[in-house]
Amino acid sequence: MRKVYSLQIQYPEQTREFDSRLTKTGRRSLSHSISHSSTDSNSSGGSDAENPEDEVSPRDMQQINSKGSRDFCIKNIKLADFGRREIEHAEDEMTALMALRKATQVEKPLAGAKIVGCTHVTAQTAVLFETLMVLGAQCRWAACNIYSTQDEVAAALAEQDFPVFAWKGESEDDFWWCIDRCVNVEGWEPNMILDDGGDMTHWIYKKYPHLFKKVKGIVEESITGIHRLHHLSKAGKLCVPAINVNDSVTKQKFDNLYCCRESILDSLKKTADIMFGGKQVVVCGYGEVGKGCSAALKAMGSVVYVTEIDPICALQACMDGFRLAKLVDVVRQVDMVITCTGNKNIVVREHMDLMKNGCVVCNMGRSNTEIDVSSLRTPELVWQHVRAQVEHIIWPDGKRIVLLAEGRVLNLSSSTVPTYVLSITATAQALALIELFNAPEGRYKQDVYLLPKKLDEYVASLHLQTFDAHLTELTDEQAKYMGLSKYGPFKPSFYR
Amino acid sequence: MRKVYSLQIQYPEQTREFDSRLTKTGRRSLSHSISHSSTDSNSSGGSDAENPEDEVSPRDMQQINSKGSRDFCIKNIKLADFGRREIEHAEDEMTALMALRKATQVEKPLAGAKIVGCTHVTAQTAVLFETLMVLGAQCRWAACNIYSTQDEVAAALAEQDFPVFAWKGESEDDFWWCIDRCVNVEGWEPNMILDDGGDMTHWIYKKYPHLFKKVKGIVEESITGIHRLHHLSKAGKLCVPAINVNDSVTKQKFDNLYCCRESILDSLKKTADIMFGGKQVVVCGYGEVGKGCSAALKAMGSVVYVTEIDPICALQACMDGFRLAKLVDVVRQVDMVITCTGNKNIVVREHMDLMKNGCVVCNMGRSNTEIDVSSLRTPELVWQHVRAQVEHIIWPDGKRIVLLAEGRVLNLSSSTVPTYVLSITATAQALALIELFNAPEGRYKQDVYLLPKKLDEYVASLHLQTFDAHLTELTDEQAKYMGLSKYGPFKPSFYR
Amino acid sequence: MRKVYSLQIQYPEQTREFDSRLTKTGRRSLSHSISHSSTDSNSSGGSDAENPEDEVSPRDMQQINSKGSRDFCIKNIKLADFGRREIEHAEDEMTALMALRKATQVEKPLAGAKIVGCTHVTAQTAVLFETLMVLGAQCRWAACNIYSTQDEVAAALAEQDFPVFAWKGESEDDFWWCIDRCVNVEGWEPNMILDDGGDMTHWIYKKYPHLFKKVKGIVEESITGIHRLHHLSKAGKLCVPAINVNDSVTKQKFDNLYCCRESILDSLKKTADIMFGGKQVVVCGYGEVGKGCSAALKAMGSVVYVTEIDPICALQACMDGFRLAKLVDVVRQVDMVITCTGNKNIVVREHMDLMKNGCVVCNMGRSNTEIDVSSLRTPELVWQHVRAQVEHIIWPDGKRIVLLAEGRVLNLSSSTVPTYVLSITATAQALALIELFNAPEGRYKQDVYLLPKKLDEYVASLHLQTFDAHLTELTDEQAKYMGLSKYGPFKPSFYR
Amino acid sequence: MRKVYSLQIQYPEQTREFDSRLTKTGRRSLSHSISHSSTDSNSSGGSDAENPEDEVSPRDMQQINSKGSRDFCIKNIKLADFGRREIEHAEDEMTALMALRKATQVEKPLAGAKIVGCTHVTAQTAVLFETLMVLGAQCRWAACNIYSTQDEVAAALAEQDFPVFAWKGESEDDFWWCIDRCVNVEGWEPNMILDDGGDMTHWIYKKYPHLFKKVKGIVEESITGIHRLHHLSKAGKLCVPAINVNDSVTKQKFDNLYCCRESILDSLKKTADIMFGGKQVVVCGYGEVGKGCSAALKAMGSVVYVTEIDPICALQACMDGFRLAKLVDVVRQVDMVITCTGNKNIVVREHMDLMKNGCVVCNMGRSNTEIDVSSLRTPELVWQHVRAQVEHIIWPDGKRIVLLAEGRVLNLSSSTVPTYVLSITATAQALALIELFNAPEGRYKQDVYLLPKKLDEYVASLHLQTFDAHLTELTDEQAKYMGLSKYGPFKPSFYR
Repeated sequence: MRKVYSLQIQYPEQTREFDSRLTKTGRRSLSHSISHSSTDSNSSGGSDAENPEDEVSPRDMQQINSKGSRDFCIKNIKLADFGRREIEHAEDEMTALMALRKATQVEKPLAGAKIVGCTHVTAQTAVLFETLMVLGAQCRWAACNIYSTQDEVAAALAEQDFPVFAWKGESEDDFWWCIDRCVNVEGWEPNMILDDGGDMTHWIYKKYPHLFKKVKGIVEESITGIHRLHHLSKAGKLCVPAINVNDSVTKQKFDNLYCCRESILDSLKKTADIMFGGKQVVVCGYGEVGKGCSAALKAMGSVVYVTEIDPICALQACMDGFRLAKLVDVVRQVDMVITCTGNKNIVVREHMDLMKNGCVVCNMGRSNTEIDVSSLRTPELVWQHVRAQVEHIIWPDGKRIVLLAEGRVLNLSSSTVPTYVLSITATAQALALIELFNAPEGRYKQDVYLLPKKLDEYVASLHLQTFDAHLTELTDEQAKYMGLSKYGPFKPSFYR
Repeated sequence: MRKVYSLQIQYPEQTREFDSRLTKTGRRSLSHSISHSSTDSNSSGGSDAENPEDEVSPRDMQQINSKGSRDFCIKNIKLADFGRREIEHAEDEMTALMALRKATQVEKPLAGAKIVGCTHVTAQTAVLFETLMVLGAQCRWAACNIYSTQDEVAAALAEQDFPVFAWKGESEDDFWWCIDRCVNVEGWEPNMILDDGGDMTHWIYKKYPHLFKKVKGIVEESITGIHRLHHLSKAGKLCVPAINVNDSVTKQKFDNLYCCRESILDSLKKTADIMFGGKQVVVCGYGEVGKGCSAALKAMGSVVYVTEIDPICALQACMDGFRLAKLVDVVRQVDMVITCTGNKNIVVREHMDLMKNGCVVCNMGRSNTEIDVSSLRTPELVWQHVRAQVEHIIWPDGKRIVLLAEGRVLNLSSSTVPTYVLSITATAQALALIELFNAPEGRYKQDVYLLPKKLDEYVASLHLQTFDAHLTELTDEQAKYMGLSKYGPFKPSFYR
Repeated sequence: MRKVYSLQIQYPEQTREFDSRLTKTGRRSLSHSISHSSTDSNSSGGSDAENPEDEVSPRDMQQINSKGSRDFCIKNIKLADFGRREIEHAEDEMTALMALRKATQVEKPLAGAKIVGCTHVTAQTAVLFETLMVLGAQCRWAACNIYSTQDEVAAALAEQDFPVFAWKGESEDDFWWCIDRCVNVEGWEPNMILDDGGDMTHWIYKKYPHLFKKVKGIVEESITGIHRLHHLSKAGKLCVPAINVNDSVTKQKFDNLYCCRESILDSLKKTADIMFGGKQVVVCGYGEVGKGCSAALKAMGSVVYVTEIDPICALQACMDGFRLAKLVDVVRQVDMVITCTGNKNIVVREHMDLMKNGCVVCNMGRSNTEIDVSSLRTPELVWQHVRAQVEHIIWPDGKRIVLLAEGRVLNLSSSTVPTYVLSITATAQALALIELFNAPEGRYKQDVYLLPKKLDEYVASLHLQTFDAHLTELTDEQAKYMGLSKYGPFKPSFYR
Repeated sequence: MRKVYSLQIQYPEQTREFDSRLTKTGRRSLSHSISHSSTDSNSSGGSDAENPEDEVSPRDMQQINSKGSRDFCIKNIKLADFGRREIEHAEDEMTALMALRKATQVEKPLAGAKIVGCTHVTAQTAVLFETLMVLGAQCRWAACNIYSTQDEVAAALAEQDFPVFAWKGESEDDFWWCIDRCVNVEGWEPNMILDDGGDMTHWIYKKYPHLFKKVKGIVEESITGIHRLHHLSKAGKLCVPAINVNDSVTKQKFDNLYCCRESILDSLKKTADIMFGGKQVVVCGYGEVGKGCSAALKAMGSVVYVTEIDPICALQACMDGFRLAKLVDVVRQVDMVITCTGNKNIVVREHMDLMKNGCVVCNMGRSNTEIDVSSLRTPELVWQHVRAQVEHIIWPDGKRIVLLAEGRVLNLSSSTVPTYVLSITATAQALALIELFNAPEGRYKQDVYLLPKKLDEYVASLHLQTFDAHLTELTDEQAKYMGLSKYGPFKPSFYR
């Protein structure tokens, strides 16, 4: 464990560790582009990778791209070609951003925008940043995570004169140094912030608060970052508008319901290699994640029980054909326990003492809190590491339970997020930046806003073409009858 | 068509006809209690029934119950025993209200409440009104619909000294006379209004506006009534708080998603007697109703296409496995077209000209508007009445399409609403009345409110017992971690 | 109960009553053609209908058709126009037979065939018989059931000089008289038998055994009839080949799996008007019928338990996601019990004593035997007739169970069989007749045969067009590789 | 490609290559036991593994176990402990065999049996062979595949004095040498053969035909082996009875329907990492494999088209809600093509020329034949190896299709077979051996038999306990009514 990062803004019951940045994007992990994966065989975003730390630090290297520029700091500029292919692969799948490039070819909606970005540096986010530039923006970019950078992608960007400061395996000091290199530039002042976790925002608040005078807005995608913004807002310290892209309908549905519906199966196969048919499973929590997991397992022939605290979600579970039970009442008989509550101590030692031999325990909700894994670290229990992400915990009588990912979010470590899901977030980010940058005076105050419904709908419409899906258009008469614009928004903002 | 009822409050593009009262509850029809149905073989709430109008009007009869009271006006007091059995049957299934009676046995939360009600008068609503009395209220009650009264139920209430003014087959004049008899009483002034369609509220506004001084609030369940309340509110004329129970999560999900999932199948079987397996169907609109219809038909082996205008709902349809198409592109090949948009002119003559022989056309959305039935009333097309709710429209070349319920809402005429669904609404109404009656000064202003989330959750929890469902309770520690009360509400109010 | 029909051929544990003819087709009921239903509001094929028997018997009437023929005996020749429309409606939906008429227009594969038929006389079977005539056959036809004849259809046939002897409400004597009128004709001897229940075959055996010399074969569709044929065969008395169309793959799948998947929902809605979502149901037996019922209820959100005696079917139930339980272990908690075993005494009094209040009990399997209804006819239990097909049985403590169709096959009384399903049987019958009539000497011996696989496949292919389904054809190379003919059969005969 | 193995028994259009042994078990791959997988990251049964062949051959080593025995030939006796743990893991999941050990503890049904086995040598088969020994048999065992042996498992067996002759990476000469070591033993003659592929049987026919005098029977599980047996039988050369365990209902359903339902998803995620929701897929062939694949993809929100040649399966596809199409008509629009026909040249170059960019092509049916991969090996197409099992084939215009496993059976290379599925086969093998060994004279002739229905049912019943499933037992009265034994078989042998 690394040194605790002391953060001035305190969150309730949450001592933020530097490592936690690995999961601060909420439920999402990093997708691997195709060729990357080929050398990396299913490991999660690099967290398991070996770092032979005997190399020279990028900060101490003098690299120069083929055009003579030095305004970047990355691992190895020679990886540029490889990285460019990666980006091109990602472009193939991120058709929404490519369509956005075309749609805005003439008007350049970000002309004049100077964006500092702090996000994961991957092929997919590279497509986003290069899109921002096509739309007219100038950008500088640091990583929001010390492990997640794809060095070849950073190299490809640097080769194109994109000022990027990121490499895989930064130290904490490197991390802040990179952020600083984005902001602290002679003769260039950012007027937009694209953040993922709030560290860029935090750094500017702390070191260069005067920059906020010119900043037109912040776009933030992570739950953590949004918490921090709300904190600032409540404290009256938020001095520019911010758009929360995390809670857009499209992102929520894809990150939670649709993505989990597939990744729960994938994750369980890859780790526990379990047959689903006929198995009894209890899913704790029937929010979007729980709904996705339950539906998938039911479809594969499992018998699923659901636990809930919220009577409305509970009633939905009943109507969807699941027995609603308390965990303690079914824990003896089930073959799997999956937590999806976002809460803590859902599965505790007492439950695990009751489980039958071979029971699989895993978490699809909040990292580390839902299963009380620490209660298993007692002398009488034997831990047996069986495989990546799989531990057997053995009771004195020989009973073993199968703990996956040590209680961390299972599909973060054991599945990949489809590029399609990442594309939805990236498109929302681009649209949010355009909106804030071009909004007329007064539309947004110093507050945190949801992505406007109409833009949320636009994100969706840009993603429909993948499915060869054909939207119907309202006639003038129909629009009038409904009291709607023909071009949306079509629903109240709270509609899910 | 009867005389147009002239209403001072005008709605956009909606000339209200008296007949429309039949459907003003929105999507719901009237459930038939068990024995009623037995004599009534699947007809819808009486609208088709013959009324041999040669009888004496109840207004001209002098009836008296066994206790000597005359404070009611109904068809026939002798039906009381039959009606009591009906009510008892309904009580068996409306366990939530019965539980509420028990839960509030001691405190009588409606002691002092004087409620005037204007709703359908059926066994199910009788359980509601008798519950209100058990909770301490005094009530007077008129029908909100000239056809829907179950005379035997009215008799049972009258026999119990309940002042009820309603019979099946009222004239318009009778209708307002009955309402007036509820309000215009010597020595008794209402302090709560329970309305379904807004007619009671309207009458008091028009005739006895002074009564509003004492009225603590209005509970309204219909879309029409809520429109009227919002109209008043915008005009600054709403002088008491109102609770909209129509848009509670529980009601919406049950009225639309869950109820339609079952009633679309039921309605199609009862009318078109179609086999679902292998059939191609297009569902227009993928809101809750469309989602319910699509899911049910897919489950029965139909191939379902969806049309949508809203890209977000469209993307959901894709992820749920439906091809998103324009109606015109699939209308030639499908065996069925089902409209669920709430809009108008979704299926027009041009579409119907393209349909193949035998195509079934029906509407689960807004009454009368979605299918342009009037375009079929042209000389070259032959209408053949085949069966209740089923018309064949025959083209000159012999092609016929099967039009169900003449484009009115299909499941209103061809299916019954389970008592369970009615129970959810009735429970919400009871809780809304308790809330408004007991709310501390200042909690509610002169505005229209949604049912508070916590009460919505309570409605759900009262209905869980039917499924032998066991809710989990938060521990103190978990509640604190989540920043929630242990007793809810558990979600933000916009959560669906 | 009518007089017991004494049958020389005895079946194990089965005293055949005349009434049982109503269900002798196995699982199928009679479909109602469109206009018939319109006057008949969902009642089952006439069994409940009142017959004011004060009319003149058809046998005593002298009717003559417009062409001067008297060779028929029916209720009323004036119904011919109405009946013709019914037949035309059925033709619209029985596209397979219509296609067969076209395909064989030139060659007349039944030229020279003289068929005596004994089946239900309905619009659908009329399409079959008229097809047989188009294919070149001469036919004479009696009803196999005293109640099921559609008199208007018989009239339409008689008007076309078709010798038909059948009316609704025959006496037993009438029944045999009609059969005799088909067989006992001067100058005409049948050479093919199309039977449904075995009565025609039986009558010829008993009265005119010499006719068998010329008979080329028997086509039989009912389970009862097939039992009788096997009995004859075992006794060495079957003197012509017979084809069992009941056990063809297409018929079995449609009569059982696909048809029940839909009709269980339809039947339950029409009778018990139950909401399926969240309900607990136990399905006894996981053969084709049980599979269909379980899948449908699961799809509607019920929680389904399955009981089985056969470990293979039991394992299938598990893999399909159903809990396998003993009835006695779940009967206390379920909301519905559905029997589909084909066995007897599946639900007995002990089970019913344990059921909770409101539990629905019904049978989709073998008529009358699966639920021990007689055990409920004891003094302490009160029977309350609630509605057609619905009885409440009330225990001394007030508990009531809801018994549907008094334990008879539920979907026979409460649902209709889609014409599509009937079309499959009728097509199989036509093909079987063609096959037997044209088979070269020696292909069939004096035995009972399944419909040849190739013909079964042909039945299926004729029904694919309804779904706009496009079959792929084997290339020569592929056929050779698989060792198959390009035109089938494609699977071994036991493949299901 | 290795040297062609010249086989005296010729199969139609099938020149057997030695390599083909890798897939000769039909559809099944080898499961990886838990710890094996951990070091082997998802590679298929060794086919991709590098064999640094510089080691000493086991045939040249002198190994001895701790008890002094040398009657085995394996890679390394020191791996015994590791192998024992593997076997114990497998025992945990193969509860049916463990139950069989207990059930037959007293009687030893294989006492006197001398079994020569030739199957894969893995932890799961070790559980089978050790079970046979517990049941009283003596066994000698060689591998049926040159790559698939788990050396640690062989070591564990050798350590227990089990005569095993097998290692990973045998040469062809080694292969036959090992088989010979099983058979050619002084003073020991086998009386039972357990074969997987027919090589042991073949060897004995060729070298030691006299042994057949004592052999009571052969149990064979592979399609290839069964073909060979039928060939012998037709040629009148089969001189002992054989039981075909491949075509038992339980094995077929689990190997094909249930196993593929899960492994198609798993395989696609692991290779193409595709999101299923909204994707259009065509599944070629709607047999058990096609049914499993289609159901799984539909459940995950894909839009599935099906192609078929057999009208009966085609009609089933329609009733299950799939559009039946010809490949050529949908191949332009789909995102994935999956072959499951068992035939050849289903997807040919013409189809692939029409596919859209990014289309995924894979095979779940017969190895190598269904997709005409050779047609892609032309100069104008570029092959890009992207990852294990994933090739991109790039057209001159830049279009790329994604070919998985080079057209070999996808789930053989990319998924694992759950131990549960292997347990079903192993149990069937054990029961078949017991049956043949104990059958009274004359029950079996010199022919190939299906596993008797009753044993098939017994296999199923031994596997029900995993699901805590409770079978119902027939009462005496019910058994009599149905004409069944209370203990089965419950269905005709052809019932699926």
